[in-house]
Amino acid sequence: MTYAGRLAVVGLGPGAPAWRSPEASERLACATDVVGYGPYLQLVGELAHAPMLHESDNRQEAERARFALGLAAEGRDVVLVSSGDPGVFAMATAVIEALHDDEAADFGRVEITIVPGITAASAAAARIGAPLGHDFCCISLSDVLKPWDVVEARLRAAAGADFVLALYNPISSQRPWQLGRALDVVGEARGAETPVVLARDVGRPGEAVVVTTLGETDPADVDMRTVLIVGSSTTRRFDDLSGRTWVYTPRTYPAER
Amino acid sequence: MTYAGRLAVVGLGPGAPAWRSPEASERLACATDVVGYGPYLQLVGELAHAPMLHESDNRQEAERARFALGLAAEGRDVVLVSSGDPGVFAMATAVIEALHDDEAADFGRVEITIVPGITAASAAAARIGAPLGHDFCCISLSDVLKPWDVVEARLRAAAGADFVLALYNPISSQRPWQLGRALDVVGEARGAETPVVLARDVGRPGEAVVVTTLGETDPADVDMRTVLIVGSSTTRRFDDLSGRTWVYTPRTYPAER
Repeated sequence: MTYAGRLAVVGLGPGAPAWRSPEASERLACATDVVGYGPYLQLVGELAHAPMLHESDNRQEAERARFALGLAAEGRDVVLVSSGDPGVFAMATAVIEALHDDEAADFGRVEITIVPGITAASAAAARIGAPLGHDFCCISLSDVLKPWDVVEARLRAAAGADFVLALYNPISSQRPWQLGRALDVVGEARGAETPVVLARDVGRPGEAVVVTTLGETDPADVDMRTVLIVGSSTTRRFDDLSGRTWVYTPRTYPAER
Repeated sequence: MTYAGRLAVVGLGPGAPAWRSPEASERLACATDVVGYGPYLQLVGELAHAPMLHESDNRQEAERARFALGLAAEGRDVVLVSSGDPGVFAMATAVIEALHDDEAADFGRVEITIVPGITAASAAAARIGAPLGHDFCCISLSDVLKPWDVVEARLRAAAGADFVLALYNPISSQRPWQLGRALDVVGEARGAETPVVLARDVGRPGEAVVVTTLGETDPADVDMRTVLIVGSSTTRRFDDLSGRTWVYTPRTYPAER
């Protein structure tokens, strides 16, 4: 079959151009249309040409996905931008859902490519050492599309099995109490001294990476542009000779704790 | 303080140069020494200059980390290469451990940078849709440095809480039975029809991505260069109009199952 047009769901990575894959840059460079949430479009920066830019609201993921697929079905070369990795709590799922739900069968002839990116947890970990060096879970704290009791059950299971936790979408003005509750749930299984990394805007202007503890983490210090990494029972923190703070989870897990 | 030399722990991404970050390429382009496991050095490909290449065995991570730090402590500009993301079951942890255990205090004056990369699970997910579109866990099945009962407890907890699972280091000649046992443990909580993605050498020559089910997964089809993604109870599979198979985990999780 021949394709109508094509759609790349592109992960820009955490923001810094130095972390954006060549494939992402190449697709942006030849796109006729770029679709995305306004701040993500700004991350794209200078483009060699002048594609049509289609800015959307952050919350309307399903509409944005259908819009991008619709443009591609008309024969255009479309890039839909995501920050981080499009497959991790981002736009790839919305696009594949729209393809699956495609009752009008308009989208099946679009050539779809998911262009992976560096996800926020990887970038945050890189800045502080290797907190994800052992088994870990990525959990979105947003209960907009899943019941809060599912979030809590997952936090409890992951904390109980001593996974490191990477918490995405930790807080927003519409979800003010969930992070505090999540930290309480994790604290049932893990000590107050457990290292916690708060990584905000990694790879962007204003980047701030703070190391604290589970007991000292204040949700007021966290916003929606922060990813939290909560250590396991083995995660360690130290300062090197230069005074730089490192956090890592050792490769070796003890047989007896 | 002034630094002696510097060390970049560089994630090459899954293999394809189109997925390697500009920062990784830049550090490789100016390194005096490149250290790594032989096949990863081959992934680096052509370099504009001729740094010293130091090839090592894959299993000697701690020695490799100390060797790379030692070179940098002598004032050299060293790159230690990892595939994927160096922070995910790779070399970043070994380097930070060596820094922490640095009794001779040789390493504290090395300027260390972790250069993040696209991890294997992200690349595998991108090839097949969006199986990681909801909460997920990354688990290494290697029991070389952790007891197998810890692996099993984590698999049981993650499967019970309905996480998607990304399984790294699934099998090797020294660890022949662990994958089969892991699939049995997951199968206690999840149906035989659960979609499973076997992604081998994504982004490299010979890439193969196969979609099967939990009940049909045969460990004989898996090797150490494969990452497995095991779906949650909501993960779906379908073929589009062109016959292409997609796997995704919807953004919405039902309140009642």
